[in-house]
Amino acid sequence: MQHYNLDKSIRTPILDQLSRSVRDCLLSKAQTKRFERGASICLQDEKVECLKIVLNGWVKLYRVCPNGNEAVLSTLEQGQSFDEIVALQGGTSPTSAEAASDCTVMFVKLSSICSCENAYAEISKAVLSAASNHLDSMIGHIEQLKVKTGTQRLSEYLIDLSDAAGGASELVLPYEKVLLAGKLGMKPESLSRAFGRLKQFGVRSIHRSVTINDVSSLQNLVNDDRACA
Amino acid sequence: MQHYNLDKSIRTPILDQLSRSVRDCLLSKAQTKRFERGASICLQDEKVECLKIVLNGWVKLYRVCPNGNEAVLSTLEQGQSFDEIVALQGGTSPTSAEAASDCTVMFVKLSSICSCENAYAEISKAVLSAASNHLDSMIGHIEQLKVKTGTQRLSEYLIDLSDAAGGASELVLPYEKVLLAGKLGMKPESLSRAFGRLKQFGVRSIHRSVTINDVSSLQNLVNDDRACA
Repeated sequence: MQHYNLDKSIRTPILDQLSRSVRDCLLSKAQTKRFERGASICLQDEKVECLKIVLNGWVKLYRVCPNGNEAVLSTLEQGQSFDEIVALQGGTSPTSAEAASDCTVMFVKLSSICSCENAYAEISKAVLSAASNHLDSMIGHIEQLKVKTGTQRLSEYLIDLSDAAGGASELVLPYEKVLLAGKLGMKPESLSRAFGRLKQFGVRSIHRSVTINDVSSLQNLVNDDRACA
Repeated sequence: MQHYNLDKSIRTPILDQLSRSVRDCLLSKAQTKRFERGASICLQDEKVECLKIVLNGWVKLYRVCPNGNEAVLSTLEQGQSFDEIVALQGGTSPTSAEAASDCTVMFVKLSSICSCENAYAEISKAVLSAASNHLDSMIGHIEQLKVKTGTQRLSEYLIDLSDAAGGASELVLPYEKVLLAGKLGMKPESLSRAFGRLKQFGVRSIHRSVTINDVSSLQNLVNDDRACA
């Protein structure tokens, strides 16, 4: 672990809500650690002392079901945080975390909160906002799993990644297709079939490179009643 | 709406965490409302002023996807609360709520928190715990949707409802099968097929009545590697 001067270009929603003094105080005590792809960052049911912020790379949050099957819950990118509530209130992590690519993670210990005025109240508020965002995204994820087909979920993911409202787009998947399948709640072979189905909508994928002829035709597919039934 | 003396036999996790003075103060300002089955309690994206506690009956939380399909997110029973964070921090509801049976709901306005000492900090802490529980249950729900078959999800639901560790059990589903299908992320016809498959495991269902010959054989099915693959 090492101390870290947070690069100001990194947007960290949870820290951005704090006053400068509380933020600086937390950062002065924060530590960072580099993980190689595939390394374990923390385990489900472990006691949590620190909230974690992804500084670069990708982190996978997942759970392992008693028979060994793994459920991917989310993939976090630069600036996103996890384990906020348990770090503040004490408790055990609801998920395991693993480096989905080489990555750097900042560990911020909240149990010994600095004595800056109002620090606890400020941090509670920021943690509540983070929890609210997580809830929204979990709710969105459940909605997606329940009412959308795998092909529609893949289309939505590609639209988000393409950053284009319409027209052509070229992009590179940020991690391998096995993880993408897990994130979208599909088996790897179903993901391959979904990519196959998207060919007629002008999507080509070779390894992690994807080209889209017209993003708006993908959007039509996502909104299609029949596919969504 | 009417004022309400909370029946002490009702366990309300969010209120149970408060000191007596803060709890009494909140309750003195709370209001209750009776809803008939099918009535709308609140709508997604509406501005939220109150956290809500189910006093009796069942409440369905759901979202409507742009093409009109509905995703059931959870079914809440007596004592459970929702919209806690948005009621505290201000914001709009991430979900719609509907009476899944005739029900009574308590509305607790948090924006004008009483002036009892430490009320805000106490309530924040209780809201954080509630949010943590919601996150845990959403995470569990996503895990279930991703790694378990429909038949396994139904089995888990029946085991939870039966309250028996093993042996025979007779139970009545708390709401109709269409809602149960939505809750478990299945189409109604898939739920029927899942009930059909459970016959060989000693489960019989007529309308909302269910008999289970041996709860532990259902538990074996849930833990079965092959079914979960």
